[in-house]
Amino acid sequence: MSKARFITLEGLDGAGKSTHLAFIRRYLEQAGIDTVFTREPGGTPLGEKLREILLDIDTEATLDTETLLMFASRQELVSSLIRPSLAAGRWVVSDRFTDATFAYQGGGRGVPAERIAILEQWVQQGLQPDLTILLDVPLEVSQARLSQSRLPDRFEREREDFHQRVRQMYLARAQANPGRFVVIDARGDIDAIQQQIAAALARLQEA
Amino acid sequence: MSKARFITLEGLDGAGKSTHLAFIRRYLEQAGIDTVFTREPGGTPLGEKLREILLDIDTEATLDTETLLMFASRQELVSSLIRPSLAAGRWVVSDRFTDATFAYQGGGRGVPAERIAILEQWVQQGLQPDLTILLDVPLEVSQARLSQSRLPDRFEREREDFHQRVRQMYLARAQANPGRFVVIDARGDIDAIQQQIAAALARLQEA
Ligand SMILES: Nc1ncnc2c1ncn2[C@@H]1O[C@H](COP(=O)(O)OP(=O)(O)O)[C@@H](O)[C@H]1O
Ligand SMILES: Nc1ncnc2c1ncn2[C@@H]1O[C@H](COP(=O)(O)OP(=O)(O)O)[C@@H](O)[C@H]1O
Ligand SMILES: [Mg+2]
Ligand SMILES: [Mg+2]
Repeated sequence: MSKARFITLEGLDGAGKSTHLAFIRRYLEQAGIDTVFTREPGGTPLGEKLREILLDIDTEATLDTETLLMFASRQELVSSLIRPSLAAGRWVVSDRFTDATFAYQGGGRGVPAERIAILEQWVQQGLQPDLTILLDVPLEVSQARLSQSRLPDRFEREREDFHQRVRQMYLARAQANPGRFVVIDARGDIDAIQQQIAAALARLQEA
Repeated sequence: MSKARFITLEGLDGAGKSTHLAFIRRYLEQAGIDTVFTREPGGTPLGEKLREILLDIDTEATLDTETLLMFASRQELVSSLIRPSLAAGRWVVSDRFTDATFAYQGGGRGVPAERIAILEQWVQQGLQPDLTILLDVPLEVSQARLSQSRLPDRFEREREDFHQRVRQMYLARAQANPGRFVVIDARGDIDAIQQQIAAALARLQEA
């Protein structure tokens, strides 16, 4: 049996993370791999309470506070779910993780990457995903998809240049960590995207 | 007009912080000093929500998560209340601050002081109280006082040796920071304690 793997899915809202998570779930199930699925912020009872606070459009929090809350939610997820699951040989797939903090609070809102990196080290103490799938789409595409679905939360209501900076930071992080990231053009048709995801998962099983 | 000052009150539950805060309030009012009073965790709308989560006996949070939440509440207080008040020339008095994290999460629960210091620096970026009044009482005294008042919260329910370690860490921090701390034996009668507090406040006005 190969070592348990930690996979994260990243991208703008509307990029297709939830859509393709369902595919990853079917793929790993068919491969007989015992997997835990989670999401950020949230994923634990405490994390979900914090998620509610963070996404509530009435919440007043400074940027630094928001960043600490993201990492508090992440700490709970890492300590109570991710590490124990991996230790027990189960794979873990998370809808967003720390790259989202670098992208949203860092790229989007301007928290210096070095400040985020201090909390990343405090919380993760070296733990990193084995594979990060970045679903990359231009803003027009993600926003067109979203406008057809649900009401925007506190992040989705941000202006266009905010989301542009988020996208650019995601791409910059992918470029800086080529061994961990697989960047997929997520505009195309769903089958073609899922073939690329399947290929990345197959490589991870062999590695 | 002298520079605005930042004062914190520390000590075990039952040591007398709330009791003597009322005295400090009267003292500064009579001195004509415009002062903002706050408390930790809490002190802001977001902080009070986090306080509820932290003190709820049903909350499941790892120690590291608890520590991050304390600092998230503190960040909001520092950014939205303490710094702006001091900048506007108002004094700030807080019922507990970072020494409580060193004492409870550090001394009481075992988070290494160096880990706490990383978050202290992240959040406070050098900001420290000008005066910390440590109300020191033996455990028998604080617990006898508490048993006559309210129901215990998640911290107050800890075992006796926990509170002993908290007390010792408070005393160790006072010893390591003699310029900032005034340690008061808070067993005695209230008038005698308040004379010592008044003397510390008077020194601060002159400084
Ligand atoms: N490749 C695609 N082509 C067309 N529509 C898509 C594609 N990927 C996702 N969608 C649609 O876009 C919307 C947002 O997708 P979703 O998976 O919820 O994104 P995310 O979880 O990243 O916010 C959904 O209605 C989904 O069906
Ligand atoms: N020096 C003192 N002598 C006797 N009782 C005291 C003294 N200081 C406080 N108390 C009483 O002890 C109880 C706890 O005091 P409180 O100010 O609420 O402590 P804290 O805020 O530190 O938890 C209250 O009932 C208070 O009246
Ligand atoms: Mg989604
Ligand atoms: Mg009190």
